[in-house]
Amino acid sequence: MNHSSKDIDHSLDPTVNDFMPGISVDNVIFGFHDQQLKVLLLECADQEHWMLPGGYIIKTESVNDAAKKVLTARTGLSEVYLQQFGVFGGLERSTPEVVNDFLKAMKVDAEKFSWHLERFITIGFFALVEFQKVNPKPDAMSLSCQWFDFHNLPKMIFDHSDLVDEALKTMRVQLRHQPIGYNLLPEEFTLKDLRTIYETILDRKIDRANFNRKMLSLGILHKKEKLFTGGAHKAPYLYSFDKSAYFAMLKEGFGLGF
Amino acid sequence: MNHSSKDIDHSLDPTVNDFMPGISVDNVIFGFHDQQLKVLLLECADQEHWMLPGGYIIKTESVNDAAKKVLTARTGLSEVYLQQFGVFGGLERSTPEVVNDFLKAMKVDAEKFSWHLERFITIGFFALVEFQKVNPKPDAMSLSCQWFDFHNLPKMIFDHSDLVDEALKTMRVQLRHQPIGYNLLPEEFTLKDLRTIYETILDRKIDRANFNRKMLSLGILHKKEKLFTGGAHKAPYLYSFDKSAYFAMLKEGFGLGF
Repeated sequence: MNHSSKDIDHSLDPTVNDFMPGISVDNVIFGFHDQQLKVLLLECADQEHWMLPGGYIIKTESVNDAAKKVLTARTGLSEVYLQQFGVFGGLERSTPEVVNDFLKAMKVDAEKFSWHLERFITIGFFALVEFQKVNPKPDAMSLSCQWFDFHNLPKMIFDHSDLVDEALKTMRVQLRHQPIGYNLLPEEFTLKDLRTIYETILDRKIDRANFNRKMLSLGILHKKEKLFTGGAHKAPYLYSFDKSAYFAMLKEGFGLGF
Repeated sequence: MNHSSKDIDHSLDPTVNDFMPGISVDNVIFGFHDQQLKVLLLECADQEHWMLPGGYIIKTESVNDAAKKVLTARTGLSEVYLQQFGVFGGLERSTPEVVNDFLKAMKVDAEKFSWHLERFITIGFFALVEFQKVNPKPDAMSLSCQWFDFHNLPKMIFDHSDLVDEALKTMRVQLRHQPIGYNLLPEEFTLKDLRTIYETILDRKIDRANFNRKMLSLGILHKKEKLFTGGAHKAPYLYSFDKSAYFAMLKEGFGLGF
């Protein structure tokens, strides 16, 4: 199964001893744009299927570093919030049918991908990135790298749509006990901007007054100038996150509060 | 690296093709007894080190099933709450020093364990079990299986004490947005019993009145008879969990509540 070093192209043919066998990482990269939550996906060679940005784990790198490397390669960003949200280790994700569909979508022959015909476990990560700052870049296996509204995801390979669902579910639960927004919003924002993020992720309307009261009570927001809108008396205030309070709360969580 | 089938003893020598290479599962099994949170550990052959109940993943079983199998084998229980809490995939957990310490603690020679000299990633699970129902049973590699107070854990192999810390941290955060107690308490219990669990896991005192008010407001408790203590007027009420409300809340979480 060893190839001579001449033959090795890690990104195209990971049939090499450099990788941990049977394990991959996959990143669900969320961005926020036009009042919508977006997910960054890669286009497969068949122009029909899409996949999550992912990769393998080199034996000499940590699992978290492998995921970070993928995130940086696809977005151009480093120093981004990236979090494990689960291991996908069911047998149904590596059946011959699933693997065949994968090979067809990738337009590669089975022999070149024999390494991937074995059972695979993937470790799911999700990241929250500032949409404007991302420079989407396809990998060597894909035709393009694009954002999709999470309500309108295209056909995806493997269990990748399950991974998006699960990442979203994790984010929704965390939303209830951890602050969110730091990586998704610009430096200054209105309470409405922040509420829109919550409404988008939760996929429902939230009472404005209730939201504002609870958000302000957390002590993680600094009030800034009013937003310049022309009609100053009606203009909403801008806010920024108190970074140290925000990150302390990210660690601690809030909740019942006893 | 293949052994003939005669030589194969899966539990003692997993140098076989039946397992996913380079991945293990480890379970942090929590029980509650004598007002203390306990962790179930296995005694290594050197009588000095202890380890978490763990195992490898057979190629034809899911990751979650592998973890369940370990839990059932060590406790005698099935149908127990078991949850992934993280992948431990750093390089520092597989250095030659770490592996040598492991081999010494297990009193096995390196040749027999060549499979484990490769880099290993482990998937951490935690379980909450009813202490009284557990029948601790060592595995083929260990001398005994015993409960330890989480404040007084013995010397452990690998990064297993980090796994306990991380499981506890996860449980502490979840405590703030999900109900807890169902698997840790008998059918009927007092609010004091429930509060003791929270105090034990959070490792601090909680205001009684505040706790009772918030707990009762969740709508997951049924009030039962008074506890028989002899002096009926002072006796506390017994409660049981409303299972459907409890499990709905386990899924949904509580929190800011907008």
